[in-house]
Amino acid sequence: MPGNSFGKMFRITTFGESHGQAIGVVIDGVPAGLPLSSEDIEFELRFRRPGSLYTSPRAESDKIEILSGVFNGRTTGMPITIIVRNIDVDSSYYEEIKYTPRPGHADLPYIMRYGFENWDYRGGGRASGRETVARVIAGAIAKKLLLSLDTWIAGCIKSLGNMEIEDEISFEEAFRSRCSPLKPCSIRYENMFRELIEKAISSGDSVGGVVEVIVKNPPVGLGEPVFDKIKADLAKAVMSIPGVVGFEVGLGFKYAKHFGSEVMDEIIVRDGRFGWRYNYSGGILGGITTGEPIVFRCAFKPTSSIRMPYKTVDLRTNEERIIVIKGRHDPCIAIRGVAVVEAMTAIVLVDHAIRSGLIPSVRLSNDIVSLIEDRWKRYREVCMHMEELR
Amino acid sequence: MPGNSFGKMFRITTFGESHGQAIGVVIDGVPAGLPLSSEDIEFELRFRRPGSLYTSPRAESDKIEILSGVFNGRTTGMPITIIVRNIDVDSSYYEEIKYTPRPGHADLPYIMRYGFENWDYRGGGRASGRETVARVIAGAIAKKLLLSLDTWIAGCIKSLGNMEIEDEISFEEAFRSRCSPLKPCSIRYENMFRELIEKAISSGDSVGGVVEVIVKNPPVGLGEPVFDKIKADLAKAVMSIPGVVGFEVGLGFKYAKHFGSEVMDEIIVRDGRFGWRYNYSGGILGGITTGEPIVFRCAFKPTSSIRMPYKTVDLRTNEERIIVIKGRHDPCIAIRGVAVVEAMTAIVLVDHAIRSGLIPSVRLSNDIVSLIEDRWKRYREVCMHMEELR
Amino acid sequence: MPGNSFGKMFRITTFGESHGQAIGVVIDGVPAGLPLSSEDIEFELRFRRPGSLYTSPRAESDKIEILSGVFNGRTTGMPITIIVRNIDVDSSYYEEIKYTPRPGHADLPYIMRYGFENWDYRGGGRASGRETVARVIAGAIAKKLLLSLDTWIAGCIKSLGNMEIEDEISFEEAFRSRCSPLKPCSIRYENMFRELIEKAISSGDSVGGVVEVIVKNPPVGLGEPVFDKIKADLAKAVMSIPGVVGFEVGLGFKYAKHFGSEVMDEIIVRDGRFGWRYNYSGGILGGITTGEPIVFRCAFKPTSSIRMPYKTVDLRTNEERIIVIKGRHDPCIAIRGVAVVEAMTAIVLVDHAIRSGLIPSVRLSNDIVSLIEDRWKRYREVCMHMEELR
Amino acid sequence: MPGNSFGKMFRITTFGESHGQAIGVVIDGVPAGLPLSSEDIEFELRFRRPGSLYTSPRAESDKIEILSGVFNGRTTGMPITIIVRNIDVDSSYYEEIKYTPRPGHADLPYIMRYGFENWDYRGGGRASGRETVARVIAGAIAKKLLLSLDTWIAGCIKSLGNMEIEDEISFEEAFRSRCSPLKPCSIRYENMFRELIEKAISSGDSVGGVVEVIVKNPPVGLGEPVFDKIKADLAKAVMSIPGVVGFEVGLGFKYAKHFGSEVMDEIIVRDGRFGWRYNYSGGILGGITTGEPIVFRCAFKPTSSIRMPYKTVDLRTNEERIIVIKGRHDPCIAIRGVAVVEAMTAIVLVDHAIRSGLIPSVRLSNDIVSLIEDRWKRYREVCMHMEELR
Repeated sequence: MPGNSFGKMFRITTFGESHGQAIGVVIDGVPAGLPLSSEDIEFELRFRRPGSLYTSPRAESDKIEILSGVFNGRTTGMPITIIVRNIDVDSSYYEEIKYTPRPGHADLPYIMRYGFENWDYRGGGRASGRETVARVIAGAIAKKLLLSLDTWIAGCIKSLGNMEIEDEISFEEAFRSRCSPLKPCSIRYENMFRELIEKAISSGDSVGGVVEVIVKNPPVGLGEPVFDKIKADLAKAVMSIPGVVGFEVGLGFKYAKHFGSEVMDEIIVRDGRFGWRYNYSGGILGGITTGEPIVFRCAFKPTSSIRMPYKTVDLRTNEERIIVIKGRHDPCIAIRGVAVVEAMTAIVLVDHAIRSGLIPSVRLSNDIVSLIEDRWKRYREVCMHMEELR
Repeated sequence: MPGNSFGKMFRITTFGESHGQAIGVVIDGVPAGLPLSSEDIEFELRFRRPGSLYTSPRAESDKIEILSGVFNGRTTGMPITIIVRNIDVDSSYYEEIKYTPRPGHADLPYIMRYGFENWDYRGGGRASGRETVARVIAGAIAKKLLLSLDTWIAGCIKSLGNMEIEDEISFEEAFRSRCSPLKPCSIRYENMFRELIEKAISSGDSVGGVVEVIVKNPPVGLGEPVFDKIKADLAKAVMSIPGVVGFEVGLGFKYAKHFGSEVMDEIIVRDGRFGWRYNYSGGILGGITTGEPIVFRCAFKPTSSIRMPYKTVDLRTNEERIIVIKGRHDPCIAIRGVAVVEAMTAIVLVDHAIRSGLIPSVRLSNDIVSLIEDRWKRYREVCMHMEELR
Repeated sequence: MPGNSFGKMFRITTFGESHGQAIGVVIDGVPAGLPLSSEDIEFELRFRRPGSLYTSPRAESDKIEILSGVFNGRTTGMPITIIVRNIDVDSSYYEEIKYTPRPGHADLPYIMRYGFENWDYRGGGRASGRETVARVIAGAIAKKLLLSLDTWIAGCIKSLGNMEIEDEISFEEAFRSRCSPLKPCSIRYENMFRELIEKAISSGDSVGGVVEVIVKNPPVGLGEPVFDKIKADLAKAVMSIPGVVGFEVGLGFKYAKHFGSEVMDEIIVRDGRFGWRYNYSGGILGGITTGEPIVFRCAFKPTSSIRMPYKTVDLRTNEERIIVIKGRHDPCIAIRGVAVVEAMTAIVLVDHAIRSGLIPSVRLSNDIVSLIEDRWKRYREVCMHMEELR
Repeated sequence: MPGNSFGKMFRITTFGESHGQAIGVVIDGVPAGLPLSSEDIEFELRFRRPGSLYTSPRAESDKIEILSGVFNGRTTGMPITIIVRNIDVDSSYYEEIKYTPRPGHADLPYIMRYGFENWDYRGGGRASGRETVARVIAGAIAKKLLLSLDTWIAGCIKSLGNMEIEDEISFEEAFRSRCSPLKPCSIRYENMFRELIEKAISSGDSVGGVVEVIVKNPPVGLGEPVFDKIKADLAKAVMSIPGVVGFEVGLGFKYAKHFGSEVMDEIIVRDGRFGWRYNYSGGILGGITTGEPIVFRCAFKPTSSIRMPYKTVDLRTNEERIIVIKGRHDPCIAIRGVAVVEAMTAIVLVDHAIRSGLIPSVRLSNDIVSLIEDRWKRYREVCMHMEELR
């Protein structure tokens, strides 16, 4: 049954396999009038790009092609389809290992579900992390639309392996992480992160991590009773990302360890409007946004491909067999995951903003378009400036 | 926008407010032929019922009324609508406090979203935990259908406040919890749980908790790439429950603290079929069930209504004001939450089982009906027996 | 699979069987703030009510009960559930004929699909025209919401049996039909209609008819490329009504008989805005409303229950057998169908109006509420006045 | 709001504009294991191809590219994306006329909805008939899947302009029409059709037509109460096609002209199974298929682009102005429409077949695959043979 679409008013449908012709996405529900160029998309794709020391060396140029829905540099209200061709893929290695499903990967579940003879074993097929490039593409459009509400999203690595950081992170710190290849929640942890990653690399190992996302200036009153609560839709969006195994909002699991009296928030008047003193609930109460920053975290497991011997089964003999996964992979998928989690967050928020009428569903007024253009320009400049500073 | 429905093939739509006429649910997509009686539903509702020392004293009789979709004791394939009348509700207290939204509750977000003048302030309205009775009703039907696959679901309290339990819990232990008013993951923690709850009660406080669910004998190969992964749909289902603030599957957040080499699972041959040695991933890989038990946890925050003074705002003056929430409430919503989490789990699994063709969408064969009846009878007998043993 | 819901933003889910406990509907997606009373609903139900000479004598009081979503006389934004109890149903006749499926009815297809043992044979079960009471209930709310846009819907009988009327019908004429038990497109045909109906009644026969609907002052620019065109959604809505076998918009099937030069419309300037000279396309071009009146027709087949001998099969012997359907039924379902077609039209238009942002999805402003109240009051007064005039 | 998707279990999302980069479709919900090649698709596209005397001379090569979801010649269960590049498009003419929206076209409604500045005026943009190439692509896959049930679909021109044909058409006659450029319902009308078309062409005119579709050996018991009736879903599917203005099933509008006694069908025993004597209802009763052939018709209006002067408005002056549409177009869109109506029919039926479990949703067994391959081969051979015979 169809499972490759997400969102109700801002609806994305992704397609493509790791070693197939292309990865792509159809985005249906983008209002007409949004200025959109390939550069806008590619700018966001940079934050997901592999190639550095700390991520997979597969050379993805990620040149996108806009197939529909944009005319004269603006969206038309029609579905926007964007693809990235898969180039220079070498599937020969997967030919070798197709009978020995990799532990920790989706290989065996896919085979059990779809049949070995129908399984695209090349590079993980559709279950590859490569699929997330489509999410980041759609997320770029969602982020631009959210600028009409002056809503900003920033993610970062909150903990890496056993390095847990207890500091409360500000939006600005999280935002600044996008200019580091390691996406640390604070620049002061960058070196410690680097050491840990290099340790993992040197031993052919990988490491898990926790991503935190902060949404600055979210719209107030977003979310639908009772199943389409913002916290529920964020959970689904984020948990659908390959490698994510946990999600929590606000205090999250820490909430459960406390007496009510210890974690009771208070409603206050701040700058003339209602607010919450501590924002323990991460900007969401009753499933509806309070206007306080949305704060949530998600856990990525360590990359499953490590250069060590592990037991699996051989599908030709149905017997156990030890394999070592070859090739080089991201030592920590959480790092590239930051851009993907940000994208999914943007998609959920813009979907709900359109559902609630805060962003028009049919077309943007010229005033809104100007606001978006100004803010997007500023966003890109700030990013560029931060990179230069490094 | 509509947000009160959940599921694609087994689709529930819930309605009703805490102090309105009734709480109810329409369940569309139940195949014809399932034997169904009021007793079946009410049997499951017992596990959610308040009234004991440890839960809210509101006397809900929870007598259900089946309005449609059942004829001669069997489902007809038509939508099943079941309601529970709200009786003996006293809304006078809420009349008093309607201008001072309760901190920690959905009051203020609802007001900000829908307008004060349109807000049903009586007992939390639609945001009340009372809404979950509709989920448990639908869950009872889902559980019966899952018996056709011999799939069983059991939840329990895995940790209560700061009492974290590191033991690995078996399905049988979790299952046994349904006969304790405290739903402890193991009978040996019952007294400690009781002490903690009584401590909270005596000081007018509340406490959070973590629910763990174990699914025994789940279908293999369930889940849809890429957004409707089982882990994603479970996350949404569970995070949509009032008070739930975190979700994790398998090792969950612990995964993130480790090197890949420490948490690598292995594929093995066990009893002649493929399996995973440690089931670190909680029975789900690539978003698809592996056949190993599904294991996940979710965090409930402490009940927000505690008998202590807290600051809020007065909507008549727009100024801060201190209130004390009166009335008695569950000291720990996680306890009654167990039944709700179980129900949502059943709904997700049966939805996917129908999507994947493992449960027929139109009608059940007589053979399947017999299997379900036998297993359901056994289930009720076992529960009764366990209660007698206590 | 779930098939009992309709609409995306204004979403109705109907339930109930002809001789079950109740017929009902959940309406999810109604913005908060709409004044709504039982009288509003029951006012619309009058136009569907049977009991006169020309329709079925089953005495349905159609007293409705609002179970949720309305508080202090206004909608809250939560799902609205409304039921009508089935009272005084006598199922004994159906007990007699359950083994001989009635020709022209859904009996045998339901049996083939769901199994004889799961079939609610009493009064047609879910396939009964009685189900449409739920649609009219939802339609009443939709009509009230459309008044915010000053959009009005009127249907009438355009042809009855072989009496085809070639006159172009004005909105006002169609509107006036609601006060005649025969719903004629013009009062001057009332007597001819009466004669035809009485002829059918006297011979135990029934007759088909065509309903025409005119929408006055529809919103401009409504409809979504490419599948959710207004004409497509109207077609589905109307064709889902029991007994409807054809749908056409504007010139409809007549279009097909012409050369393009004969039916070419022209765009003109009228009263300072763009318009179409002839409105051949019935107010919809490219699937999008033009602002001209929406005009469509649908064909109802004659009531299938007639007092004449017809062949069917006996399910006990699997052999052919002649039966005569007893009981009294509407001689022409098209007549009561007018109210149902109007309701479905309103539901489609309000759904699209919310999708396009022309009606707010979350809550109505006080200004809009006042407009609606004024127009609704006027509407009821006009109807009352017309009835008195008769 | 998203409106470019259709279907629930077999779900298509189309994209692309007439003069944009490409037209394409994502098909989500195709079970794994279906043999699929570019040739399969292109074979079906032939029946929609323009280029002959009687259709538009735009030279569309319609070479398709499969971007995802197929591996080693079989579907994988992942979304299948197929595109057709738009080549050799010349948009200069549309540059000329963009300020004078063409009467009868979607130009002005699109402008009113999305804004002139966001409107892709080249060749009708998304509203172009060119969009239907995506439907025929998806329909080819749907048709192949339906062969697993031995279900066959054939459409033809039942009436052309004022040439109405009263003959009852057999499936075989309808099927044979696919080899004539005029798609006549019977070969004996081919010359008359040709004369009429040539008359239209010679005077720069166009002509309307009625398409009839016959489904041979449809599955029994398909269709969902109460909104997703087969007749309702077919109506929506067909009415969403550009230029379609009417739909009727079985006797359709003729039903409405009769007394019940004149059009009463009878249930009989035929070849040992239940059947309907006359199939007046076109194979659908109560919205559910009876097993008798499905028969429906739809009306296409004449092509709106004709070489005659018509009034429109000039958007620069907001005044009326006379234009003549240049270029050459199909004199009768109904002719190419046959392939599109067939495709939409196949999509509805396969969607419902998967919903009802008659076609597996996850993967096809080898037995089914063999059946499909044999029947598909036979189908292509028969088509080829028929063409040679001409």
